[in-house]
Amino acid sequence: MNKLMECVPNFSEGRNSEIIEQIANAFRNKGGVTLLDYSGDVDHNRMVITAIGEPQALKAAVVEAIGVAVNLIDLNQHSGVHPRMGAVDVVPFIPIKDCTMDEAVALSKEVAEEVANLYDLPVFLYEKSASASHRENLASVRKGGFEGLEAKFLLPEWKPDYGPLHKHPTAGAVTIGARNPLIAFNVNLGTNNLAIAGSIARKVRFIGGGLRYCKAMGVALEKQGIVQVSMNLTDYTQTSVYRVFELVKVEALRYGVPIVGSELIGLIPLAAIADTAAYYLRLDNFSVNQILENHLME
Amino acid sequence: MNKLMECVPNFSEGRNSEIIEQIANAFRNKGGVTLLDYSGDVDHNRMVITAIGEPQALKAAVVEAIGVAVNLIDLNQHSGVHPRMGAVDVVPFIPIKDCTMDEAVALSKEVAEEVANLYDLPVFLYEKSASASHRENLASVRKGGFEGLEAKFLLPEWKPDYGPLHKHPTAGAVTIGARNPLIAFNVNLGTNNLAIAGSIARKVRFIGGGLRYCKAMGVALEKQGIVQVSMNLTDYTQTSVYRVFELVKVEALRYGVPIVGSELIGLIPLAAIADTAAYYLRLDNFSVNQILENHLME
Repeated sequence: MNKLMECVPNFSEGRNSEIIEQIANAFRNKGGVTLLDYSGDVDHNRMVITAIGEPQALKAAVVEAIGVAVNLIDLNQHSGVHPRMGAVDVVPFIPIKDCTMDEAVALSKEVAEEVANLYDLPVFLYEKSASASHRENLASVRKGGFEGLEAKFLLPEWKPDYGPLHKHPTAGAVTIGARNPLIAFNVNLGTNNLAIAGSIARKVRFIGGGLRYCKAMGVALEKQGIVQVSMNLTDYTQTSVYRVFELVKVEALRYGVPIVGSELIGLIPLAAIADTAAYYLRLDNFSVNQILENHLME
Repeated sequence: MNKLMECVPNFSEGRNSEIIEQIANAFRNKGGVTLLDYSGDVDHNRMVITAIGEPQALKAAVVEAIGVAVNLIDLNQHSGVHPRMGAVDVVPFIPIKDCTMDEAVALSKEVAEEVANLYDLPVFLYEKSASASHRENLASVRKGGFEGLEAKFLLPEWKPDYGPLHKHPTAGAVTIGARNPLIAFNVNLGTNNLAIAGSIARKVRFIGGGLRYCKAMGVALEKQGIVQVSMNLTDYTQTSVYRVFELVKVEALRYGVPIVGSELIGLIPLAAIADTAAYYLRLDNFSVNQILENHLME
């Protein structure tokens, strides 16, 4: 198998199924590109595409999809609970197979330059592609949203990396970059006390003094009558899934609260699953190449 | 990807590298077949091939390899510590991907019929392909070895499934069948007391009242100065790796002996690794399709 890059672009349309399909079409019937998943969320009024492919083929599909979204989505008419600054809100590239983070960064910059020129769209680079450390975090780049873009452009530290120094009248701005695969991992607690989930979340996450590549918050699962520590693991090669799980368990012990289950949302890299099994079985010298299916792919 | 079958044939030659290479060649440069691994063992005087492929292409390669071995190996001249009854001793087929055990059984019978006719070779079917329950176990079929074949053929319950009612003068007989993937899993104990490893092995294995699809024995690792519970898990879908590991741990506790590591020999199916991770992380509704690389293969 050749180089494989993933792209998980977020678009600010989660209600109009005609627009959703037109954006998704940019990833259909393209040689070298596979549309793995897409779904619109009505509350967030936002759609997320998961596509994978040979880097240049994927780039072409992403550039096309951004064009479709810029043409069809007007942020002046947009409402939704999710923060956003543009018709195309964020476009992360993730190196998957036989390609490096440097290649993902280079690809993200090619896409950024091309869409800035083609669609007269201001582009911010973020995460591994960021041009300065204060631009790495998506929440910081997006702060102020579509409505605050004009004020943001007056600040020298928020000059776009590509494109004009004014917002696109209907499509705002877009944030593009390369990042590690992200694992969405949630641990369910045997209590309905949201304060306990929040307290555990604050302790295990990076900003609270916890694990470096862990973001966490407490969430109530009202239908099930329990609470959840909902997490994003932003670099599983450094902050392992099992370490996160064990730390949540340790913190829950303090409240006498049991772990009643956990869930992985979306996809998880094989190495993260193998790493977990190897830890608990205390495996010496285990390699993912010993996993039959993986061996076959090589 | 299409249907994928594995074959792990064992040949009674582990010393003559010319013969070893000629047998391996049957799996080389064949469309639809991949030679994953092969190795000869001098003490056992035996070689094991691991090959995988589209069922009919794999069948052709296996039939060819059996012909090479029948021509080149003379059991009358053969010595080695491993029990064996033929130049080609045992030929297991294992369904790997998008094919069922029934298909593996059917394929094993096609190969059995073909090699019986082509090479005038008596064939026993074993495991899932066995024609009677007393023929399922390889050790029972092989009992008596090459030297005892003539006596065996006199017993009505050991009539071969295919081929003549007499042994091939130089190649003996062959056992062919379909089985589940086998996981070779060894757990290392923090002691040099072989009796403890043996005692734990006898408790966790099926014949001692232990887990149904677990074979086990105690082994000394003299270089490391420790002992090991060495196991074959013959159906990981029924007897999970984590359950075996936890049971060994429970039995070791009785002797105050710690688990100091473990090892997987050769390949392990992805589902077995995923099952282990899901158990320890208490994952709800986890599917191997959530593993990115596996998702990509689909």
